[in-house]
Amino acid sequence: MAGPEYHHRMLHLHSTSPDRWLAQVDQNLNDILIDHAHCEQKAASTAMHLMFEYVENEDLRQEMTEIIAEELEHFHMVLALLKQRDIRFYKMKPGTYGRKLMGLCRRQEPHKAVDRLLVAGLIEARSCERFVLLRDHLQDTQLSDFYGSLYESEARHHATYVRLAQSYGDDAEVSSRLEALAEAEAKIIADGCELPRVHS
Amino acid sequence: MAGPEYHHRMLHLHSTSPDRWLAQVDQNLNDILIDHAHCEQKAASTAMHLMFEYVENEDLRQEMTEIIAEELEHFHMVLALLKQRDIRFYKMKPGTYGRKLMGLCRRQEPHKAVDRLLVAGLIEARSCERFVLLRDHLQDTQLSDFYGSLYESEARHHATYVRLAQSYGDDAEVSSRLEALAEAEAKIIADGCELPRVHS
Repeated sequence: MAGPEYHHRMLHLHSTSPDRWLAQVDQNLNDILIDHAHCEQKAASTAMHLMFEYVENEDLRQEMTEIIAEELEHFHMVLALLKQRDIRFYKMKPGTYGRKLMGLCRRQEPHKAVDRLLVAGLIEARSCERFVLLRDHLQDTQLSDFYGSLYESEARHHATYVRLAQSYGDDAEVSSRLEALAEAEAKIIADGCELPRVHS
Repeated sequence: MAGPEYHHRMLHLHSTSPDRWLAQVDQNLNDILIDHAHCEQKAASTAMHLMFEYVENEDLRQEMTEIIAEELEHFHMVLALLKQRDIRFYKMKPGTYGRKLMGLCRRQEPHKAVDRLLVAGLIEARSCERFVLLRDHLQDTQLSDFYGSLYESEARHHATYVRLAQSYGDDAEVSSRLEALAEAEAKIIADGCELPRVHS
């Protein structure tokens, strides 16, 4: 089993999640599960949005179509898990993570495309890192197994988004933006969010 | 083969498309094909939007998931057809049809849900009617076969949306709104739209 160091390099993350987050998880597990359903939903919406925004990119179209199908499958899996546990799914106020990241994206094309794809990739990366933490931390074997089964697809989506960003900028630009956005992402994670969420 | 009368009853449409539309098709076939790709795109977006808006409805969630997959498959099929014909896909100004129909939806839930589902169903119905017309009208066998292969799924989606509307209103309400919206839809079609589109 690869250790967390390995994951972080592969995922371009600039930090590991603080213990504070696992404490939030322990105290608000149901909220985290409900928010996980929201995350899959947002991931599917984002992929569809990107597909239609950059529809002339055939590679992107194919990848987004696969990601949409996978995220929707995960969405249904989380909802089934909630139902089995008698946890009512409801529309929860989102945490601040996604909004803060979106605010970092440049507004002019093609830079906007680079940034939006990299931000989508970093969200997948952080999800991956946290799903591994949940797998290792949660005592509940069903949940531990569930997160153990999901994190690899998040890592794969991360790699896909980073690769797709390279259609809209040269290697130097994409690398430097990836580092800058990952640095900002680590800062957002360090600041945290009071609401218990997957990315709080 | 069932005649158009049969289709219209099944589809709850209050009119057949005017010859004016087939004249638009003949003079602007490429635009119609490009707009068809946009229609599949909008159909997938609408289904995803409805799924997340009415996420507590398990039946709706399952149906929307299937519709999203089908619409995206059709979207890719239309894009492949465009590519094969060297027609460049680009973001085209939408016709007025969708906006006019959306404007008819009531704003308060659960009536909003009834109306949005019925409007989605009527758009599918009109697409179905027009795909049959294209199948019968177009001399190009590839296109004629293509539309012949697509219209049944539109009819199926129509029936699904009408059935799902019944989760949000009783039979009398859903029937009377379906008739009222279909009447308005026929008027919108009769008024037409100068831009050559699938629903102009």
